[in-house]
Amino acid sequence: MHTLLLVLDLIGTFVFALSGALTAVRRQLDLFGVLVLSFAAGNAGGITRDLLIGATPPAAIADWRYLGVSVLAGIITFYRYATIERLRNPVQLSDAAGLALFAVAGAQKALAFGLNPAMAALLGMLTGIGGGMLRDVLVTEIPTVLRADLYAVAALAGAAVVVLGSLLQLPPTATTLVGAGLCFGLRYMAIRHRWHLPVARYIADESQQDTRP
Amino acid sequence: MHTLLLVLDLIGTFVFALSGALTAVRRQLDLFGVLVLSFAAGNAGGITRDLLIGATPPAAIADWRYLGVSVLAGIITFYRYATIERLRNPVQLSDAAGLALFAVAGAQKALAFGLNPAMAALLGMLTGIGGGMLRDVLVTEIPTVLRADLYAVAALAGAAVVVLGSLLQLPPTATTLVGAGLCFGLRYMAIRHRWHLPVARYIADESQQDTRP
Amino acid sequence: MHTLLLVLDLIGTFVFALSGALTAVRRQLDLFGVLVLSFAAGNAGGITRDLLIGATPPAAIADWRYLGVSVLAGIITFYRYATIERLRNPVQLSDAAGLALFAVAGAQKALAFGLNPAMAALLGMLTGIGGGMLRDVLVTEIPTVLRADLYAVAALAGAAVVVLGSLLQLPPTATTLVGAGLCFGLRYMAIRHRWHLPVARYIADESQQDTRP
Repeated sequence: MHTLLLVLDLIGTFVFALSGALTAVRRQLDLFGVLVLSFAAGNAGGITRDLLIGATPPAAIADWRYLGVSVLAGIITFYRYATIERLRNPVQLSDAAGLALFAVAGAQKALAFGLNPAMAALLGMLTGIGGGMLRDVLVTEIPTVLRADLYAVAALAGAAVVVLGSLLQLPPTATTLVGAGLCFGLRYMAIRHRWHLPVARYIADESQQDTRP
Repeated sequence: MHTLLLVLDLIGTFVFALSGALTAVRRQLDLFGVLVLSFAAGNAGGITRDLLIGATPPAAIADWRYLGVSVLAGIITFYRYATIERLRNPVQLSDAAGLALFAVAGAQKALAFGLNPAMAALLGMLTGIGGGMLRDVLVTEIPTVLRADLYAVAALAGAAVVVLGSLLQLPPTATTLVGAGLCFGLRYMAIRHRWHLPVARYIADESQQDTRP
Repeated sequence: MHTLLLVLDLIGTFVFALSGALTAVRRQLDLFGVLVLSFAAGNAGGITRDLLIGATPPAAIADWRYLGVSVLAGIITFYRYATIERLRNPVQLSDAAGLALFAVAGAQKALAFGLNPAMAALLGMLTGIGGGMLRDVLVTEIPTVLRADLYAVAALAGAAVVVLGSLLQLPPTATTLVGAGLCFGLRYMAIRHRWHLPVARYIADESQQDTRP
């Protein structure tokens, strides 16, 4: 069971690292930049979670295999960019799978470190979305998760199922599967039907500028 | 006394979260993006301080009330944007009050963890300005605190009073009140009279570009 | 020996802080912004390393001398910008020396905290490049280390020598000198001959946009 979780975690890291490498190639970074964005996209979510719960050194730093699959994803994308781009539907589906896995695993780890339920669910979500946020900040884009379709919400829903199951003392394997399935399903429907969250009504008014730094 | 401090801390978090939500609505982020910027602006300063002094998990993660007031500020701003914008003078004043409180509380926490005096004052300042910096980086703006009027300096002055008082073994309640009052007063005067720090003379010269990455 | 290392470390911090201050003046930040970028460029690499290996509070926070040399570099640059710009060749050389020192010292500290060899080498590299990355993100530029000439690779090579030497149980002083020399030499040649890493072939295709947030 433990080995299975590790394998799934590494697969999630690999697909997330692909998204980082694709961004880096599009922005014409050099080989090193591609590898950095691969590692950042694949591991920043888990590293931030581990720093916040006090689990140092973070798993992605202590275990070389996370680095290994990130570098592998970066090198493949660097030399086979066109091929990876052509695979975009499979890549999107495995990205949704990676998100589901990171969200439930992140929530479980936070619970294991004694975080309160609401924060454990949020740290599960953060595990899923943190990598993409750092990837975007490094190429000076507003993180797309802050304005795109149902991505963070899917991760939060999956993590919440795990936390609720733990509160109700349901069997962890079952709640993990249900949580991951819910996250994957929501994300799949959001991609297919372009579901998204509302945006506030806002009429630009130049005379009203916030002067708070 | 402890309850009072917590209440003041939560009020500070709330007003800072408002500034994050206002920025998010102006940049047309979706509801999730508004909530993320609310939480980031309200809590990133304190979280960074806690990570640096080794107090994990940070208070804003361990105590769900910080999340609660941040989400509340985000939702109010999302659905009542125009109202919050119209309140800009009261918002600026409570922001100055939040800054004063965060600066003195941050300095005290750093002292309690055994930091040296200069660093305790700086961590107090960081507690006050860190949230606004992350908020701006997430929407790819240069943090306004790096070039705006007397904001960081007011926080630093307030934190320094607390640290000096501790060095001279003055009663903590008195130095806390004086420090917070000094910070608030400086910030208030800076808003009213547009006080600001000097900018270096710089004549752009394209032939001289730094090649250091 | 310990005193020598500290002195070298502070010199490295000083030259890195100069690069942060130069960037801040060019972007017309105010005096406070110049000091923040000085401190960030000089210390963010080491602070990140210390957070990741669990060495809190980080050395740059616990020891006021790191703050002192950073502020000194910032103030000198603020008031003598033209002079510092004119010194660009010496500044580049001392920057290369700072990089070499940070890389080998960072790798040694990571080894001392029990990190695995591959990660110790990478944390050495991160110690060298982290400051410049935060400096660039704060002024909303894509970190130049992600697309510039041989900078990170030089740091990685120097750090790898230290790690290899430790695996082979060679005398630490010798491997430190060789590692630092290799990093400095590579960086020097990269500046002189504009060596750089390859960039992936990429033909922009607007129809293929990643929708992963």
